[in-house]
Amino acid sequence: MASSEIDQLIQLMSKIPGLGARSARRATLHLIKHRESLLSPLGEAMAAAATNVKNCGSCGNLDTTDPCGICQNNTRDQATICVVEDVSDLWALERAGAFAGLYHVLGGTLSPLDGVGPEDLRIDELITRVADGGVSEVIVALNATVDGQTTAHYLTDRLEESGVKVSHLAHGVPVGGELDYLDDGTLATALKSRRSLV
Amino acid sequence: MASSEIDQLIQLMSKIPGLGARSARRATLHLIKHRESLLSPLGEAMAAAATNVKNCGSCGNLDTTDPCGICQNNTRDQATICVVEDVSDLWALERAGAFAGLYHVLGGTLSPLDGVGPEDLRIDELITRVADGGVSEVIVALNATVDGQTTAHYLTDRLEESGVKVSHLAHGVPVGGELDYLDDGTLATALKSRRSLV
Repeated sequence: MASSEIDQLIQLMSKIPGLGARSARRATLHLIKHRESLLSPLGEAMAAAATNVKNCGSCGNLDTTDPCGICQNNTRDQATICVVEDVSDLWALERAGAFAGLYHVLGGTLSPLDGVGPEDLRIDELITRVADGGVSEVIVALNATVDGQTTAHYLTDRLEESGVKVSHLAHGVPVGGELDYLDDGTLATALKSRRSLV
Repeated sequence: MASSEIDQLIQLMSKIPGLGARSARRATLHLIKHRESLLSPLGEAMAAAATNVKNCGSCGNLDTTDPCGICQNNTRDQATICVVEDVSDLWALERAGAFAGLYHVLGGTLSPLDGVGPEDLRIDELITRVADGGVSEVIVALNATVDGQTTAHYLTDRLEESGVKVSHLAHGVPVGGELDYLDDGTLATALKSRRSLV
């Protein structure tokens, strides 16, 4: 159909999550039509990211420096480590702007059915970071899924002997959420964890 | 949140049609995690396309050569020109594999409300191609929208004096389409243009 060069670009574009064969064609055509403003800069940004972005050896975050900008930032609370499943969760917490400590990216959750064991995640690295001292609290901020909660329990067990404080995110009604649309489990948890106002 | 390099990539990714702010973050993370297999090749393919892809001076198609591969192909019927609105329509017809002539990409449709007049489209180039001779039929394959049909009528008027045969795509029931889901206009046209079987 089109030239092999355009075909190859469409082929690669269709592998981007969120784009299918059809939307990849549409997107590719849009990119080619906006060559100067979009296609060239995007190609350069991708090449730069492919070359420069690496995993932080300490927390597992993605950044152009190792240690990453968060680990290097001395104004952040070095005594609190927030454990997240993936870099996207770290980004979400940073966007919320409610946490000023350090992070630890596990790189997934335990999942015996998928063959993911503790040795496949960055759990030993976390234990080492805590054992090295200077950490007073580990906040386990894993997703509220079955695998996430299983992993959270496993982490709590492993961290118990270090004597460090381990906490979890609160469950409850999302801010702006309507009770009518919430599942029973969330409602029951929110009711059980109710806080007195006076 | 992330490093400025990753932020910039997310920012550019979110300008791809079909991706929003959230899916651009997810896609960027996926790309970075698949650096060797996806991010690097995609960056290279984009840079190559930005450098090499150009518009065909004859038909307006996008290709790495000018004239494009279709115009250069001597086995195609040089006497039939199919007029399409956009390169994506040319691609669609090529995928269908039902047309073996040449194309002419208008680059849009007439739209007085948006200030698109005949001088903004590649209409004069089409008239010149037809006037240069060797063309026996112009197939107007514009979208069945109001703007598309307006443009089709305008083209028919302009081509009338050249004496060349001008045809339009047939309207009717799409192959695999169910009558119950079709709009009244399509059904009425399909009925009016019915073809006898015996």
